[in-house]
Amino acid sequence: MERTEKILAGNVRAVSTLIRNLEDRNPGAKAAISNIYPHTGRAHVVGFTGSPGAGKSTLIDTMIAVYRQRGKTVGALLVDPTSPFTGGAVLGDRVRMQRHAGDPGVFVRSLASRGALGGLSKAVGNAIHLLDAMGKDIIIVETIGAGQQGVDIINHAHTVVVVQIPGLGDEIQILKAGILEIADIFMINKADRDGGGKLYQELMNMLNMVAKYPGGWRPPIIMADNNNDREAFMKSVEKLTDAVDAHYQNLISKDVLDERLLRHVMIELDETLESAILDPIISELMKSGELDRFVDKILHREMDPNTIAEEIAGRYLKGYDRDRISQ
Amino acid sequence: MERTEKILAGNVRAVSTLIRNLEDRNPGAKAAISNIYPHTGRAHVVGFTGSPGAGKSTLIDTMIAVYRQRGKTVGALLVDPTSPFTGGAVLGDRVRMQRHAGDPGVFVRSLASRGALGGLSKAVGNAIHLLDAMGKDIIIVETIGAGQQGVDIINHAHTVVVVQIPGLGDEIQILKAGILEIADIFMINKADRDGGGKLYQELMNMLNMVAKYPGGWRPPIIMADNNNDREAFMKSVEKLTDAVDAHYQNLISKDVLDERLLRHVMIELDETLESAILDPIISELMKSGELDRFVDKILHREMDPNTIAEEIAGRYLKGYDRDRISQ
Repeated sequence: MERTEKILAGNVRAVSTLIRNLEDRNPGAKAAISNIYPHTGRAHVVGFTGSPGAGKSTLIDTMIAVYRQRGKTVGALLVDPTSPFTGGAVLGDRVRMQRHAGDPGVFVRSLASRGALGGLSKAVGNAIHLLDAMGKDIIIVETIGAGQQGVDIINHAHTVVVVQIPGLGDEIQILKAGILEIADIFMINKADRDGGGKLYQELMNMLNMVAKYPGGWRPPIIMADNNNDREAFMKSVEKLTDAVDAHYQNLISKDVLDERLLRHVMIELDETLESAILDPIISELMKSGELDRFVDKILHREMDPNTIAEEIAGRYLKGYDRDRISQ
Repeated sequence: MERTEKILAGNVRAVSTLIRNLEDRNPGAKAAISNIYPHTGRAHVVGFTGSPGAGKSTLIDTMIAVYRQRGKTVGALLVDPTSPFTGGAVLGDRVRMQRHAGDPGVFVRSLASRGALGGLSKAVGNAIHLLDAMGKDIIIVETIGAGQQGVDIINHAHTVVVVQIPGLGDEIQILKAGILEIADIFMINKADRDGGGKLYQELMNMLNMVAKYPGGWRPPIIMADNNNDREAFMKSVEKLTDAVDAHYQNLISKDVLDERLLRHVMIELDETLESAILDPIISELMKSGELDRFVDKILHREMDPNTIAEEIAGRYLKGYDRDRISQ
């Protein structure tokens, strides 16, 4: 239990090691998460998403500073779908956050998926539990809103900030990305660029179309200009931080927090069932060489995936009844 | 078998109905896919991804015209992570593709996830099988490269086109999204915008850093200017189409196609095992009310997800051995 105690005491080295084990899908990490789990559920998890180039890292860095001024401790997870070509080295813009490196109230880590198929979402969830157990008040999670290996931030955060910048296209593009479904707060960054006013108006029009918001929370739109004027930028991020706090208070007071927590737990349970039930079946089929044979049959169109999956289900599940199950 | 024959004969209504059933996760759709599966594996699947506003729809629309001129039949799937607020109505930019509506050699469909958690990737895979079985030579799949509910196009396509536009930020942003891992061809759209030359140079620098490309295929960079000059734009898309064809020929001649097909099959089998094994377990736990009780225990931190998942595994799996499985 020594490791659990170290984590609960906020030991940075113990937490870092465990995060690395989570990334590597080291099976021992599972038990560690089980042990710390009773000590989680206290932190406010804030997700940031938006296109690459929207300036999320600078916003988060500044928000950390704002929260520190307000006496809150902060953990930040920067989710990085690592390319096998570049390894984990593409952390250039993380360097900026080094200014918090000497502050024991701040813990910043990048989280990469090391080439594994899937599993990043589960690692993110577990890393959040860790920072929560180590006592951080606020946990900020940055996800890269760009296509492949996406982590659905709505499945992890209490409050989701969607960062937008002018110049990417018209209203319909905004709707396409499904962000209205997930945004609790809109942040227009670099709002003094061409098209900033238009983007604001389009977001407003879109928000006006919604008849009823869950919990009565209409996502506010916060604007920040290009980051040259540090003081003005800080003011914008303070506004954003106020909105983030107000959203959390609203979640709690309007009883919509439970709904969101329920979603998080359902997804976590689903992912955990996958690794407790499917992963061992697949690994056994791999070891016996049968998986290769099945794959070969699919490649040559001798069998289809559904038929094979049902055969495997029949072999591993107690009392498997194909008709009951495929109905 | 009547339905299967209709699909193989290219009956649009039969295919449309089945796609709708796939979106709705209608269980009867499974058997239909099993029946058509032996008739798949012939089409060339081309994926388009990139930020919202990059102009993917116009590119695809024009590429369909190019392929038709070249005597190929085309199917196109436009993947739309539908928001529960907006329903499936946000198809404004699909209207442009109506110009192909009277052409029996073209079949265009939007594919939405109707609020379900996950499952969109599987529906995309099955819809590709359908268009393949109905005899389309080329199947174009557009995915929205923006965050939530992402469909990993690399898991479905033989050739992936990554569409970029100038003005979104610097090199590191490009790397962040992990596109080098998935791009077979880069398309710089609206290249005459500010920053077009810089984007080209950054992509070139990035490509120069790669020591060895699988199959010796170095992703080419195709440029298109703003779409005002229709003829010039058409020429750019012809170039793009040539590159897409050349990539497919390279895949075949360099024996790297097998590797990609293997990846597709592995992922499809994984998704199918999920719906054959996990889905029925979860649905049984839901019906008995036990899932609610488990979720409640997690919410109140009385049990953790791992412990619960192992309990469920022990109940449903034949000869379940916790130590063997959690090793």
